[in-house]
Amino acid sequence: MKPQSEADNMLKNVHGKVGRYDFLAEPFHCDFSNRLFMGHLGNHLLNAADFHSNERDFGMHYLNTIHRTWVLSRLVIEMTEMPVAYTKFAVETWVEGALRFFTHRDFKVEDALTGQIFGYGRSVWAMIDTDTRQPVDLLKVHDGRILKYVDTNKTCPINPPSRVKMTAAAEFVRTIDTGYSDVDVNGHINSVKYIEHILDLWKLDRYREQRIRRFEIAYVAEGHGGDRLSFYREQTTPDEYCVRVMKIEPNGGEPLEVCRSKVQFAEKNAPTEAE
Amino acid sequence: MKPQSEADNMLKNVHGKVGRYDFLAEPFHCDFSNRLFMGHLGNHLLNAADFHSNERDFGMHYLNTIHRTWVLSRLVIEMTEMPVAYTKFAVETWVEGALRFFTHRDFKVEDALTGQIFGYGRSVWAMIDTDTRQPVDLLKVHDGRILKYVDTNKTCPINPPSRVKMTAAAEFVRTIDTGYSDVDVNGHINSVKYIEHILDLWKLDRYREQRIRRFEIAYVAEGHGGDRLSFYREQTTPDEYCVRVMKIEPNGGEPLEVCRSKVQFAEKNAPTEAE
Repeated sequence: MKPQSEADNMLKNVHGKVGRYDFLAEPFHCDFSNRLFMGHLGNHLLNAADFHSNERDFGMHYLNTIHRTWVLSRLVIEMTEMPVAYTKFAVETWVEGALRFFTHRDFKVEDALTGQIFGYGRSVWAMIDTDTRQPVDLLKVHDGRILKYVDTNKTCPINPPSRVKMTAAAEFVRTIDTGYSDVDVNGHINSVKYIEHILDLWKLDRYREQRIRRFEIAYVAEGHGGDRLSFYREQTTPDEYCVRVMKIEPNGGEPLEVCRSKVQFAEKNAPTEAE
Repeated sequence: MKPQSEADNMLKNVHGKVGRYDFLAEPFHCDFSNRLFMGHLGNHLLNAADFHSNERDFGMHYLNTIHRTWVLSRLVIEMTEMPVAYTKFAVETWVEGALRFFTHRDFKVEDALTGQIFGYGRSVWAMIDTDTRQPVDLLKVHDGRILKYVDTNKTCPINPPSRVKMTAAAEFVRTIDTGYSDVDVNGHINSVKYIEHILDLWKLDRYREQRIRRFEIAYVAEGHGGDRLSFYREQTTPDEYCVRVMKIEPNGGEPLEVCRSKVQFAEKNAPTEAE
């Protein structure tokens, strides 16, 4: 079985509800334990969502022509195991449901050759008008075409996004200045870059002993290049932390919340871990 | 013509001197002008080098078994144009020459469908013993197998790496703390992350008006996660800057140079630019 390239990926699966796209765990996208970084996995999930929606004509390619775009609102990734370098893995993605202002898209990540399941993902997306930045009714695009692709049979056996509760006990950890490399084609701070910045809040020692079992992020407001980001962290159980990210814009002003995240660690010696 | 995946890439080209690998300019790997980030292009060149050398049995896969590894010493990328999002591009790579302690590897980047040349790259690599971290004679690996693949016919029409001269006039720009996301499988700061950090020294406005014509980097010493990096910059012509990166290790000590870089900008309105 030969995995397909991203380019090939875009040419197939045009009719099914589920899209399946194969990727390689590139060596320079792996951490010091030789396993794919969570941020790069997040990028692959976003690629799969992009390919799937473009193929079915409700993706960015079409939306750009009518001044609409998808905005990622929430992303959850829960992994039993992270692919090691050079692993060919498949990302399946499908629409679980679509309401007027939100759509739920799920992901399954498995070894492309053996079918071993690595984990699952869930995401929530809104659609906005790119001129007004206001939410729009996504069921009006192509007369609700997205509903044709809703798959109610396929299951995603992880918990949906949870509320990330922060209290006054949250501790300030660090501040960073965002720049050119943080900014995506919309001029906003790249969703994946937030994941990297958040996971950098823990020292390397943490990742020597533990792996990330579940990662959640809720995007609250848009950040822009040049914003100064401050990270606050609160430990909620021995292996669970909540994180709040605040921005201060280059011209100053009040700090505003841009996203919240919840990170659950697990010991590396789980039975499925081959290390 | 269907571009190959990275996985397919690894299964072909086993006998030729030149390796050719196709990639997609992924949408989330593009900057706000919708063109591939230099750092991500650098990652693709390193992937191509990795695939090419592994296929010919002088890559990391074999070297790991004999406690050797390749270390990137210099990288130069010179672009006429950067691929826009969703472009399928091909990276050709070949060994230009091999000496006992250094090998020169070149790259050509072109549109995979039209053949339009986007640019070229040059790199210099050393081989080290992973136990002693000392340089070793790379011609002793498989009795000098690498020499069989030296291609003296193929040309790379860009200047070789130059000396990056810094004077006392270099200005301190910023300091950053490296973390989990900066570190590769060897525990060192990822070569590509240095490129990102260096290009973040310029404000977004610079990239609105100009593009990077040529990027050079020379790796002087290994950085590790937790090192604090300081960036010094010196303007050498109206469109050219030299950068020095110094590290201070977590336990303190004297600042040590980890790399030097030279960045040449050009106006975006060059004739080959479609924007």
